[in-house]
Amino acid sequence: MEKFTVQFIPHDVSIEVAAGESLLAAAMEAGVHINASCGGGGVCGKCRVVVEEGVSACEQTDKLTQDDYDGGWRLACMTEVRDHLTVRVPMESSALLGGELPQATPRATAHIRKMDFEALKEEGLFIPPMEKIFVELPVPDASDHSADVTRLFQYLKTVRGEGGLDIDLSVIRKMPKVLRDGEFKATVTLERPVKSGNKSRIVNIQSGDRTDWNYAIALDIGTTTIYGQLFNLKDAAVLEQCGKVNGQVSYGEDVISRIIYAEKEGGLERLRQVVVETINEIVGRLLSRSGVDVEEVSTVAIAGNTTMTQLLLGVDPRNIRRAPYVPAANVYPPLLAQSLGITLAEHTTALIYPLISSYVGGDIVAGVMGSGLYRSDKLTLFIDIGTNAEIVVGNKEWLACTACSAGPAFEGGGIKFGMRAAPGAIEDFSLDPVSWEPMLRTVGGARPRGICGSGLITTVAVLFENRIIDSRGKFNTDQANPRLRESEGITEYVLVWADQTDIGRDITLTEPDIDNLIRAKGAVYSGCETLLNEVGLSISEIEEIILAGGFGSYIDLQRAFTIGFLPEIDPAKVTFIGNGSLMGAKMSALTNTLRQDVVQVVRMMTNFELSETPSYMDHYIAALFLPHTDLNLFPRLKARLSEKQGAVDTP
Amino acid sequence: MEKFTVQFIPHDVSIEVAAGESLLAAAMEAGVHINASCGGGGVCGKCRVVVEEGVSACEQTDKLTQDDYDGGWRLACMTEVRDHLTVRVPMESSALLGGELPQATPRATAHIRKMDFEALKEEGLFIPPMEKIFVELPVPDASDHSADVTRLFQYLKTVRGEGGLDIDLSVIRKMPKVLRDGEFKATVTLERPVKSGNKSRIVNIQSGDRTDWNYAIALDIGTTTIYGQLFNLKDAAVLEQCGKVNGQVSYGEDVISRIIYAEKEGGLERLRQVVVETINEIVGRLLSRSGVDVEEVSTVAIAGNTTMTQLLLGVDPRNIRRAPYVPAANVYPPLLAQSLGITLAEHTTALIYPLISSYVGGDIVAGVMGSGLYRSDKLTLFIDIGTNAEIVVGNKEWLACTACSAGPAFEGGGIKFGMRAAPGAIEDFSLDPVSWEPMLRTVGGARPRGICGSGLITTVAVLFENRIIDSRGKFNTDQANPRLRESEGITEYVLVWADQTDIGRDITLTEPDIDNLIRAKGAVYSGCETLLNEVGLSISEIEEIILAGGFGSYIDLQRAFTIGFLPEIDPAKVTFIGNGSLMGAKMSALTNTLRQDVVQVVRMMTNFELSETPSYMDHYIAALFLPHTDLNLFPRLKARLSEKQGAVDTP
Repeated sequence: MEKFTVQFIPHDVSIEVAAGESLLAAAMEAGVHINASCGGGGVCGKCRVVVEEGVSACEQTDKLTQDDYDGGWRLACMTEVRDHLTVRVPMESSALLGGELPQATPRATAHIRKMDFEALKEEGLFIPPMEKIFVELPVPDASDHSADVTRLFQYLKTVRGEGGLDIDLSVIRKMPKVLRDGEFKATVTLERPVKSGNKSRIVNIQSGDRTDWNYAIALDIGTTTIYGQLFNLKDAAVLEQCGKVNGQVSYGEDVISRIIYAEKEGGLERLRQVVVETINEIVGRLLSRSGVDVEEVSTVAIAGNTTMTQLLLGVDPRNIRRAPYVPAANVYPPLLAQSLGITLAEHTTALIYPLISSYVGGDIVAGVMGSGLYRSDKLTLFIDIGTNAEIVVGNKEWLACTACSAGPAFEGGGIKFGMRAAPGAIEDFSLDPVSWEPMLRTVGGARPRGICGSGLITTVAVLFENRIIDSRGKFNTDQANPRLRESEGITEYVLVWADQTDIGRDITLTEPDIDNLIRAKGAVYSGCETLLNEVGLSISEIEEIILAGGFGSYIDLQRAFTIGFLPEIDPAKVTFIGNGSLMGAKMSALTNTLRQDVVQVVRMMTNFELSETPSYMDHYIAALFLPHTDLNLFPRLKARLSEKQGAVDTP
Repeated sequence: MEKFTVQFIPHDVSIEVAAGESLLAAAMEAGVHINASCGGGGVCGKCRVVVEEGVSACEQTDKLTQDDYDGGWRLACMTEVRDHLTVRVPMESSALLGGELPQATPRATAHIRKMDFEALKEEGLFIPPMEKIFVELPVPDASDHSADVTRLFQYLKTVRGEGGLDIDLSVIRKMPKVLRDGEFKATVTLERPVKSGNKSRIVNIQSGDRTDWNYAIALDIGTTTIYGQLFNLKDAAVLEQCGKVNGQVSYGEDVISRIIYAEKEGGLERLRQVVVETINEIVGRLLSRSGVDVEEVSTVAIAGNTTMTQLLLGVDPRNIRRAPYVPAANVYPPLLAQSLGITLAEHTTALIYPLISSYVGGDIVAGVMGSGLYRSDKLTLFIDIGTNAEIVVGNKEWLACTACSAGPAFEGGGIKFGMRAAPGAIEDFSLDPVSWEPMLRTVGGARPRGICGSGLITTVAVLFENRIIDSRGKFNTDQANPRLRESEGITEYVLVWADQTDIGRDITLTEPDIDNLIRAKGAVYSGCETLLNEVGLSISEIEEIILAGGFGSYIDLQRAFTIGFLPEIDPAKVTFIGNGSLMGAKMSALTNTLRQDVVQVVRMMTNFELSETPSYMDHYIAALFLPHTDLNLFPRLKARLSEKQGAVDTP
């Protein structure tokens, strides 16, 4: 078969591929990451590249103008390699892979919840599942030939009251040397069982007293991003944290595209390897920056959604996307981190967060645990917003949950100039009251490159309140506005003129963009409404809303109410917890009581599948307006709009 | 560095080695096995080879005569490679590696004990630790989204009363496909815990009903030989068996040489690999001959002495040979066979027999279990004789044990023409009452090549009873006997003249050979005596003697009493059990009750270290005669000898 060489710049990576392979596949194979939101179906138009040398053709697509095409622009997923090529991957198509992500810092518009470890300690709940115990064993002599393990068990039983222990072969292998090197003074690491009646297990032994060195890592495995924290198991102090884009994004941006990729020959194993690579990069940085010896990391606690969990564990996720949407398991056994390919020590265990259903995963359970919702007296609505929105309602007595597909709009997908909250993303927008010219703020203050999810909400809310967009999400073309124009039959609003951008093109907001946003927010809103209905509650009875997730942290509450994204509630009742999944993962490595509770929570939580809840579709259609067909659901907004209306109408 | 090629014949294997490497090392590397009893120290003189081409020198040694040396004979361990060589490995130096061993068939001189599985069944004890259960799960639909694992657990709990189960990740990985392939009808394999209160664990799942296919393998890992049996877990029927020489014999014949080798750089890992290779050859044959699918083997039960166990598990055995002789562990956790390198299925567990001490290993515990001693009303003396002799005394109420080093004499070590019980080994000997010429029987009826342990006992006993050897183990040179001669200062008896042998040299019995035998039998006898003394018993109170082990099976009881090898007892009270270790291993895979009992037995058995029992040395010295300094301990023999004496003296 004929082969061609493809060189990617600015990476300067070359690869030889068989004739006919797609440019996207070639890039994946070369380790060059191109932002392929739709998983390579020509749908999202994100994988724009410039073929600088060589002849290439690509199918006609409305994602490229004739000018683009003539300038060498191609969609990587639609372009077959039929020549030796030099391909430039522009910054806008390149994911943030390799770079490090900032930790999400919630807006200061409401109080931020933090874990209270002092309280945990006071309640006596601060008992990490991995405990180190220092032992001083009697030295064997002619009157005492006990085996090393027997000697240790005897001591732990008589001196520490630890009976009925299990022990790993790896520990037995180390023991003869470790005991003698330390003159029979040693430190053993015990893994405590989830259920207090079950056996503890000895997973490591070290010479001398190492009880002061006992660390853990918490990992939040998101579809898009992975965050890790290294902390001390003695006092819960965080030593380091690190976030990176999940290497799997090159294989599709949402869980469905990942599942489809996993169904291909070798796809599951490939996705498993890729996510483990990202995890290992994070683990490596956490260790090297903190100076913690890998031997001293006792456990890694991992929370992720159901698909991310199954991909990491190498469990085929195909049934997640097929009715009746059945996950493989709710609860996974504790594993060895090394058995998952994670480069930690031989003894380090991996605790996998239990999950509820195919679309309410371990990340949500972790959020419910980390936020303390499951122990709260208050009737609480917990919302984690991303490509999927997961919603939990309840308190310490009962819990119910559901999940809805918001689509990729909040993460920039399906939005013409949508992007993630990376430098250059428009994240705040307002109108000059005099000139009606936009005022923008971008992430990192960089020149604009696109618009991120929170920026989109704000922009649409501002344009709606100023009647540039009407309640159907259409531009009000009656008004003369130099920024409003029609392009190829689509009405759009120019947010930034080309010369002020970093990408050399006008950045615009189109009516299809607004439609996508409305569908996304409508899904979330109607999800909340349906879940509340199913459990016989109304929003007015909710005492607290917890917003979780990186995206949730950036939301401007006022704007979210304005577009009808969230049920309107007193902002004082809203709490931001940032990365609830990471918080919960961390907690599970700090208190064994929580690990016992988690299994209970997973068992007691009632899951509603919206696709099988008939009222959902009615709620959804009613929510496909700004803010809603029924403005009375948003009394504060209604008051404000009438006031403005008055102000405008009065003169 | 200069390199030379060494060709081994008749194997016709060549290898290139660095100048100065020993011939023994070259042979090991080439996979050519040479019988190196002493582990390569020039001590045993077993590794005789003929250098047919090329120049080689070897250190002077009393193991080779000048004639031998001039004829090209060398000790492989003492010969450095300094030229391209062609080396012939004579049959007598080559271990039986590669070939298959016969199962030991005990002599029919006493009744042979067999396992009674019908009795086990009747007692309700026949509950294998690996159980297969057929399940017919409800098919998921819109009203039932339970995860696959949850669905299975639910069924097992409600339909089978199986609560609180654990499950392996490997099973979760298989489950989505296996369940759907079989339309939610499947067979799960449960591993039952040793302790009935603990959790059962799901280790495998298969589509459809596979409950009729459930097999196990038992392995006896001996220092010299490894035996395996494949049997059905439904009815205990043995489908196949196979024995091979432990590949480790090339690295030393006894446990001490193996431990010394294991202490070298990479030695432990090498010995681990080598024994696993032998195990895998046996497992491969058991499977291919029986036609059993490797997927259907649920467990492998393994018994071995302490050193063999630690080497197989990769646990450094150095402390076994150093005072105070401490093993790493008494009880090992259940493992996955694959984690040990054994080529069985992913789910197949390995059950390792618990052990008592450094010199009373899992093989002995297995023998105590397999023979039923631990459940016997009779006061029983259990003796397993090999390079080491392990002795257990007790009944169902109490057990005590000890071990003594008999040395390699019973296996042919330290005996000039000693060899294992392989074809050509003299195994029976008598004197023609008229001509006083020997009558011989060899293993397999082959031309004589040497003498094995049981042959040695018989020969010395016959020569002693006929006063050719006196009670000090010296030849009676007063008598004229054409077969008695002195060679290089050593008195010897020609058993076979050169022209009647397979090796072209006179096969003789020397006074040092007799000394070695007396020391060996003295160690065993005084071991029994010391142990009985320590627990306050005398031999007359013993109601049964159980002889275990391949060597034990071949012993002629009468002859053994004659040389004072065993305490004299009514032969009707002696039982042979053959390979008790294999028998016990098999039982542990058939009845979980036994696995519970084993841990109890290990805990309750009192171990005496002879080296720390002062009376042992006195008993030992008293036993260094034929049969003993105190002939009154052997009343039957005494009577027989006086009768003979009378017969001789009377005329």
